[in-house]
Amino acid sequence: MASTQFNAEEIEKLDKQYRTQLINSLTGFKSLALIGTADVSGKTNLSLFSQIFHVGAHPPLIGLLSRPNTVPRHTLENILEKESFTINHVKSDFYEQAHATSARWDVSEFAVVGLHEEYLDSFSVPFVKESHIKLGCELREVLDIQSNGTHLLIGEIKLITLDDSFLEDDGFVDLEAAGTITVSGLDSYHHTSKIGRLPYAKPIKK
Amino acid sequence: MASTQFNAEEIEKLDKQYRTQLINSLTGFKSLALIGTADVSGKTNLSLFSQIFHVGAHPPLIGLLSRPNTVPRHTLENILEKESFTINHVKSDFYEQAHATSARWDVSEFAVVGLHEEYLDSFSVPFVKESHIKLGCELREVLDIQSNGTHLLIGEIKLITLDDSFLEDDGFVDLEAAGTITVSGLDSYHHTSKIGRLPYAKPIKK
Repeated sequence: MASTQFNAEEIEKLDKQYRTQLINSLTGFKSLALIGTADVSGKTNLSLFSQIFHVGAHPPLIGLLSRPNTVPRHTLENILEKESFTINHVKSDFYEQAHATSARWDVSEFAVVGLHEEYLDSFSVPFVKESHIKLGCELREVLDIQSNGTHLLIGEIKLITLDDSFLEDDGFVDLEAAGTITVSGLDSYHHTSKIGRLPYAKPIKK
Repeated sequence: MASTQFNAEEIEKLDKQYRTQLINSLTGFKSLALIGTADVSGKTNLSLFSQIFHVGAHPPLIGLLSRPNTVPRHTLENILEKESFTINHVKSDFYEQAHATSARWDVSEFAVVGLHEEYLDSFSVPFVKESHIKLGCELREVLDIQSNGTHLLIGEIKLITLDDSFLEDDGFVDLEAAGTITVSGLDSYHHTSKIGRLPYAKPIKK
């Protein structure tokens, strides 16, 4: 098979849109979730994120990367204001609505894309009613990435709601059976099909 | 469908292993890649990571989360020493070898798991010969996450090598056709099946 190579100089010279597609593809398949927030007046916001990652289990921490705050970023502003947010997994039966939250709406995305607000426990920020796995998080830490002005938000998981038929005896959640989907690049959505679970890796004794 | 809810107090009380499995599942499907490094003496290391994420395309930046440096973390130490590392996508035909790098080996993982070193361009750190999408990165920034002592490494992509049959006209890389796999939880590996690509989201004009 023929292979293509781009060195630093060639990457630098790529067309901007082409480079955006290419670089966004290179991190592999990504987590996908709708982030629910609200401002202090109660106006809600819903935004699709793919830069979400596991930070730790003890305490239970999740990281969320937000673009620079140079244009209005309601999610970032809302999280900084209320110090809480929700993470809602996406299924294929509402992935088009989830994708539509990426447009620049003047009103709350909940009002226009066809997904519904739900309020759980003591959280004053909205969860997505249609979602099957929902996390309520409190902001713990904000880190600024100097290299490009993005902001990394660290949230602590304070509430977990999920369909218990996908929760296995060891705590593993079968996301594939649950219908959680994944994304590659900017706009390519995918189901998964399991290859297998592997046991904890140990060195082979000679 | 019955749903299960865990509040903060219940999460806190979960058995440690159960909580590790549960929290690791909640971020959704994750990026998966082998990180290739070397120390100054030339001893190589290969380690499987799932906490890899897109940071930006201009400049081309990738983030990598490393656990605290309280036990030997060769990948972290090597990256801090040589300020460069490689990211190598994983296919199903070598995912068991990739998983085996997670064990605590005294020698280089390359010597024992059956994957081979490859050196490209001016990089003095090893790429994985068997991998179909390989990135050479230089360390740009290190951020310390106070909440749990993990370290976030930001790398700039300086070299991209991939099979050109998976590179589309707009720069999108068809990772599914290329055979890149994804992971959920700690140990569950998955192929993907495409749902579709969606056009750039725009508000609906009334």
